[in-house]
Amino acid sequence: MSKFVYLFNEGNAGMRNLLGGKGANLAEMTSLGLPVPQGFTVTTEACTKYYTDGKTLTDDVVNQIFEGITSLENLYGKKFGDAENPLLVSVRSGARASMPGMMDTILNLGLNDIAVEGLARLTDNPRFAYDSYRRFIQMFADVVMEIDKSNFEELFDAQKEKRGVKEDTELDADDLKIIVAQFKKKYAELKGEEFPQDPREQLLEAVKAVFRSWDNPRANVYRRLNNIPYEWGTAVNVQVMVFGNMGLDSGTGVAFSRNPSNGENELYGEYLFNAQGEDVVAGIRTPEPIANLKKVNPAIYEEFAQIAEKLEKHYRDMQDMEFTIERGKLFILQTRNGKRTAQAALRIAIDLVKEGLLTEEEAILKVEPKSLDALLHPQFDAKAIKKATPIAKGLNASPGAAAGKVVFTAERAKELSADGSPVILVRQETSPEDIEGMVVARGIVTARGGMTSHAAVVARGMGTCCVAGCGELHINEEQRFFECKGKRYNEGDWISIDGGTGFIYGEKIDTVEADVSGDFATLMEWADKYRALSIRTNADNPKDAETAIRFGAEGIGLCRTEHMFFESDRIFAMRQMIVAKNVEERRKALAKLLPIQRKDFEEIYRVLKGLPVTIRYLDPPLHEFLPHTKEEITELAEDLGITYEELKATIDELHEFNPMLGHRGCRLSVTYPEIAEMQTRAVIEAAINVTKEGNFTVKPEIMIPLVGEVKELEYIKKIVDETAKKVMEEQGLTLEYKVGTMIEIPRACLTADEIAEKADFFSFGTNDLTQMTFGFSRDDAGKFLEDYYDKKVFAMDPFAHVDRKGVGQLMKTAIKLGRSVKPDLKLGICGEHGGDPYSIEFCHEIGLDYVSCSPFRVPIARLAAAHANILNKRK
Amino acid sequence: MSKFVYLFNEGNAGMRNLLGGKGANLAEMTSLGLPVPQGFTVTTEACTKYYTDGKTLTDDVVNQIFEGITSLENLYGKKFGDAENPLLVSVRSGARASMPGMMDTILNLGLNDIAVEGLARLTDNPRFAYDSYRRFIQMFADVVMEIDKSNFEELFDAQKEKRGVKEDTELDADDLKIIVAQFKKKYAELKGEEFPQDPREQLLEAVKAVFRSWDNPRANVYRRLNNIPYEWGTAVNVQVMVFGNMGLDSGTGVAFSRNPSNGENELYGEYLFNAQGEDVVAGIRTPEPIANLKKVNPAIYEEFAQIAEKLEKHYRDMQDMEFTIERGKLFILQTRNGKRTAQAALRIAIDLVKEGLLTEEEAILKVEPKSLDALLHPQFDAKAIKKATPIAKGLNASPGAAAGKVVFTAERAKELSADGSPVILVRQETSPEDIEGMVVARGIVTARGGMTSHAAVVARGMGTCCVAGCGELHINEEQRFFECKGKRYNEGDWISIDGGTGFIYGEKIDTVEADVSGDFATLMEWADKYRALSIRTNADNPKDAETAIRFGAEGIGLCRTEHMFFESDRIFAMRQMIVAKNVEERRKALAKLLPIQRKDFEEIYRVLKGLPVTIRYLDPPLHEFLPHTKEEITELAEDLGITYEELKATIDELHEFNPMLGHRGCRLSVTYPEIAEMQTRAVIEAAINVTKEGNFTVKPEIMIPLVGEVKELEYIKKIVDETAKKVMEEQGLTLEYKVGTMIEIPRACLTADEIAEKADFFSFGTNDLTQMTFGFSRDDAGKFLEDYYDKKVFAMDPFAHVDRKGVGQLMKTAIKLGRSVKPDLKLGICGEHGGDPYSIEFCHEIGLDYVSCSPFRVPIARLAAAHANILNKRK
Repeated sequence: MSKFVYLFNEGNAGMRNLLGGKGANLAEMTSLGLPVPQGFTVTTEACTKYYTDGKTLTDDVVNQIFEGITSLENLYGKKFGDAENPLLVSVRSGARASMPGMMDTILNLGLNDIAVEGLARLTDNPRFAYDSYRRFIQMFADVVMEIDKSNFEELFDAQKEKRGVKEDTELDADDLKIIVAQFKKKYAELKGEEFPQDPREQLLEAVKAVFRSWDNPRANVYRRLNNIPYEWGTAVNVQVMVFGNMGLDSGTGVAFSRNPSNGENELYGEYLFNAQGEDVVAGIRTPEPIANLKKVNPAIYEEFAQIAEKLEKHYRDMQDMEFTIERGKLFILQTRNGKRTAQAALRIAIDLVKEGLLTEEEAILKVEPKSLDALLHPQFDAKAIKKATPIAKGLNASPGAAAGKVVFTAERAKELSADGSPVILVRQETSPEDIEGMVVARGIVTARGGMTSHAAVVARGMGTCCVAGCGELHINEEQRFFECKGKRYNEGDWISIDGGTGFIYGEKIDTVEADVSGDFATLMEWADKYRALSIRTNADNPKDAETAIRFGAEGIGLCRTEHMFFESDRIFAMRQMIVAKNVEERRKALAKLLPIQRKDFEEIYRVLKGLPVTIRYLDPPLHEFLPHTKEEITELAEDLGITYEELKATIDELHEFNPMLGHRGCRLSVTYPEIAEMQTRAVIEAAINVTKEGNFTVKPEIMIPLVGEVKELEYIKKIVDETAKKVMEEQGLTLEYKVGTMIEIPRACLTADEIAEKADFFSFGTNDLTQMTFGFSRDDAGKFLEDYYDKKVFAMDPFAHVDRKGVGQLMKTAIKLGRSVKPDLKLGICGEHGGDPYSIEFCHEIGLDYVSCSPFRVPIARLAAAHANILNKRK
Repeated sequence: MSKFVYLFNEGNAGMRNLLGGKGANLAEMTSLGLPVPQGFTVTTEACTKYYTDGKTLTDDVVNQIFEGITSLENLYGKKFGDAENPLLVSVRSGARASMPGMMDTILNLGLNDIAVEGLARLTDNPRFAYDSYRRFIQMFADVVMEIDKSNFEELFDAQKEKRGVKEDTELDADDLKIIVAQFKKKYAELKGEEFPQDPREQLLEAVKAVFRSWDNPRANVYRRLNNIPYEWGTAVNVQVMVFGNMGLDSGTGVAFSRNPSNGENELYGEYLFNAQGEDVVAGIRTPEPIANLKKVNPAIYEEFAQIAEKLEKHYRDMQDMEFTIERGKLFILQTRNGKRTAQAALRIAIDLVKEGLLTEEEAILKVEPKSLDALLHPQFDAKAIKKATPIAKGLNASPGAAAGKVVFTAERAKELSADGSPVILVRQETSPEDIEGMVVARGIVTARGGMTSHAAVVARGMGTCCVAGCGELHINEEQRFFECKGKRYNEGDWISIDGGTGFIYGEKIDTVEADVSGDFATLMEWADKYRALSIRTNADNPKDAETAIRFGAEGIGLCRTEHMFFESDRIFAMRQMIVAKNVEERRKALAKLLPIQRKDFEEIYRVLKGLPVTIRYLDPPLHEFLPHTKEEITELAEDLGITYEELKATIDELHEFNPMLGHRGCRLSVTYPEIAEMQTRAVIEAAINVTKEGNFTVKPEIMIPLVGEVKELEYIKKIVDETAKKVMEEQGLTLEYKVGTMIEIPRACLTADEIAEKADFFSFGTNDLTQMTFGFSRDDAGKFLEDYYDKKVFAMDPFAHVDRKGVGQLMKTAIKLGRSVKPDLKLGICGEHGGDPYSIEFCHEIGLDYVSCSPFRVPIARLAAAHANILNKRK
């Protein structure tokens, strides 16, 4: 028969998968001989079984739980529900990974009308006994039975009022007896059955409640955001109670072995005398700093400090511990690696290496790559944000915090910021035309669109904070205001947003600049030492490129040329190109774009100083460059010197049912080879000009997007090679360049051997590849993906984390086929996934040469790449 | 060294790939001892080499050609360009497959100012010699040098005028000498160089012209339409001239060994005495029926008839032969399997079996599956159509011919046809709302949309002829007229259309009904005997289902439930469902749809009489069911009892950027499980009701569309199973049903092992699978696919013929994975490709159990399936 219950002395820290983090650590501490109240853990497998058995506890599980209780009874000489010496336990959840959103703790389980008397006698403290009982009833009703606790708080307050007292502590034992009776009556009234007097029944209900909480909405959201598989399940820990509320020689507290906020090596925490843990949480009394304990009870403090040190050395990481002092005796209730700020994480990891506790590799693994985000962007001032209440919540699309005046158009953003005002651009959704407003804004908010909407992608690229898809905002762009929960915010009003949490605040909140301290640099240095993947960046302009280089990028993996065409000094020529009636007219318009584009490339090359620059040729469908309202069309037609009808006809003709699946990418250059010709001329002429400056040699990498058939690449490569040859002859300088392709169409993966024959490199465009492999567009999927998460059809967002099963398989196929004909084919990724640690790990595993991500993700990618390599070597 | 030139006596019929069809047959006839003027063939490999060598003939090829000439000189004792006995040759193209659009014949090559005199002396006929020379100059100039022949015709006519004669034959040798001089002068004037006097130069130029013609636009279009690879190349045949124009004992003609129009076993053809082949083609003189030759020259006739019979027996197929009689001696210039009408093809194939020349399997292979189309639809009266000239040409989207009065809306179509008028529905493009108008129309024309546009797909499904995407029509739906080439056609005017050719006529042309004769039935019977694939049909209503069953369908492979919702009696409930604010409202609306849908299913089940019916659940995005113009929205809002703003908001909310990649398919039922619930109830209740009638047992197959992840299928299958169980309990009858899935998303193919665990069957939806594998939508690809064909990036339309390399590979992966966990998994296809012979062959190869196609494609699919099986066994 399977073993579903482990006593603490039967386990160890290595059994985390089975016992959960908390259970494994309790077992480990037991074996270390620390003063841990004993107990047992119901395994995660029992949780899984609970669900497959239709949400029931089968007899074998129940029996093993009861055997566990018997062991505890024997160990402590107490009896469950006993009138003389009752066994009381706490029940806590404990999954493999720490999981906020799961069930809260239940304390004092085992109390009933008889046991409470026993407890009163035993402690000679009826007030304590009845206070414990009323707390238990309320907790059980709330947490296990989902009865709102306000029902009980009302009764409690009524009794206080009746007795004319203000503080809970002013109520005496008799008051609490009355309250217990009222609580039980209320419970029976609301549940339709008596409060369970059988401690075994109490226990089983509590265990089931923990299991149920694994599947509650908050837990599901948390799991999705943190890539925790639903299949893992949670364990349940049942532990004998010790009481911190048995008088002034008792107490309870939590402490970290180092400061979790800045990483300093000092015992850091709080404690409360004569209290149970929940009192600390409830905030009714203000706890004291742990340092005070040293004055009050130096012996206990010293004992705890030694235990803390021992645990830290044992786990080789900063520990977060819960302890209780019962009548002068110290008990440790829990230990775990402590949560910490990114700044503290760096400091602790580096200190532990200095102290000889960790190797550099281990230290690297101690820092979560994505936690670095917080170090790279401005944040709200810690004090100011504490006082603020958000007015709405959207998607945390791009990290950082900002305060600014609301504007609703890119133009107003430019105007106001030109006057020196910080602005927040608020739009239904953004489009490429908004780019200049987005550049000047401190923050961006949209009402529609997901994590990979235009606003989100561009904002992340620029390192600007962004809250996307905030449906709670009702935006009236015309009349320049938005409404939220009945309140109206006009243009010019101050708001603040946090792109790391998705919160929007209706006021100005101060921010503090990012602090990239020396620890950051040290860790990055180590990461570079241990990673195998190169890190490049997605950058379309010199500013982004500079940022990325500063953050350690080793080249540009994706320079999107179309973004260059949206700027106001060039969009007109672009539009002339689009409405051209024949090749000659088109060439004329392209000739105007050539010097502009060449200059852009020159500037980028200069920033890169000889590092590789991968330039992707024009990608979006042409209609994206044309206006759509009647006024704009009229105006543009006039500028272009054609009639409204002509321009309208062109726009209509360019209309697409599914732009994502339309005339874009390399398809444009197959139709209009003169576009590829102009772009090649710009790329090569710029490279020659900058090389001639004499500081370094430019080796451009030309990337053809959206190839699905090798003949597309062949056709365009021929134009590129011919043009490049001509330009080099004209300029009298020969330089190396590469021609590669995006791999972003399923068919490209399936025919990668043919494509590799003609390509110098592959760069996986996993945004499009994900869309086509799944058959849904990122812009439209927002509508149903929430349902998919709720119904557990999807565990995570495939646009945020690469789908290994489907998309990943296509990538592996492409690599296998590509390298079968060209073993040294260079492979990279330039989709959004290139900046996601989970995806970077996969990219390392499948053998890519580099990942490319937005500038502000570069440090994260460097660290994630190191993680991937270290973890992979350990396998 | 490679051999690029084969004398006729060095080859045989088996060398078609190398020598082309014409060359191989000339060689074969030579070895049969037939009277063939000797010559040689320049191979298809020489053609390929010509292109890879940058469109030049390399020395080795040239030398081998000249060696061929030397052989002919020796054989005939003549000399190229000789003043005494000049060797004259014809030059003709000849690809592997017959290819209209390639270069025309050049006759009399080898003539120059000297040889012409030799010929005059030799034949004692200067008039003949100079006539031959002037013909040669004109042909060479036109065909080889691309000088418009009108330049020469003018000179010829001028001379006739000058001499005051009407007929060419009235000009004498001196006239022709003058004309030759004028022709040469004209040639030099236009070309900037003298007419080449060196026969070797003439020959090489002619050979190159043939090779060039392989790549001309007409040839490219023909190849694409007929799946002929560009790589094949063409051969060139150089053959010693014989002359049918050497007097009244000479002549030339073409004849078929059987009647190509109805298949009757009789010599059928035409001949012209004292003429060269081009005179027959030019139509200047009217040729006589071949039967007349019997009277004029019974010996020659008899000789020819015997040769015809011999060739037919030898090739075991009806032959199309060219012959020339030179001074009473018969020469055969060419033979090939003759083109024939579908009706003739059936008759001949069956007769040849009766005559013991072919086996049934061989006879089946003699009939092109797609040729059957012509037998299944009305066609224009042969005489009437001869006189008509088309006004425009669109895509041949659905075969058949029709005449009717023009209407521009579905409503007018219904009104006019209710009055008994045949109508042709002409629209910019059709949408599901037009369905009732499409049903009553005789034919459908659209100005926009491709071969798989809504109009095309629906029309093919109904067997209604359709010309799609005819951009030449400028349609004004509002004012009810269209303009074409400056002429206006109003509502009620007669037009005629041929969906098999794409031609539109501005007049009424009589049609004749389809003739499905006894031969048709015989061949279908044979096909059924030899095929392995089952054939099902795509049918959404009893009428289509009946048609398909009559054509031999063995079940329904795809019953699209959404088409049912568009009809006017139900669209309103559908719309109520869509605008429902909560589950209760949605259920209420669905409850109205339930009886309607149940009745639909009952009717279809009754038609199918127990054959399998695969019902696909709701697939399109919901916005397709809502109106889009302001008027319609206002009206609908009123009907629905909500405000315009509310309805508009719903419509806006449902708007999708890429509907193809949006909230559709199984995604709808994940969001709104009550839809799957209602549809299951309708499917199962209808099945029980019809089963209870006692005639047969219904076994419905429920098909979940657009699955990309097994959990989608699991989620919906659970709803289906629970609902079915409930219904069966309510009704007190248990019946079998299957739950399967469309495989139409790349990820479904890649995870087919997981999906197969939960699916009873797979049906490949190759329309969507093609879109997603290539990353372009069929609606939008029209814009660039023409460029792709022109630039040889694509050889054929992947929406018409399954792309074996990409899409096919995904299909194979899905099959391999699917059958790895479920060896007896049933596999089918229900995309448009299911009716395409090229794709059916592939479906057979990869091991599908059935193909499903539109009703009018069923016979084609039956025959194609037989072809696939027979050809596959031969491999």
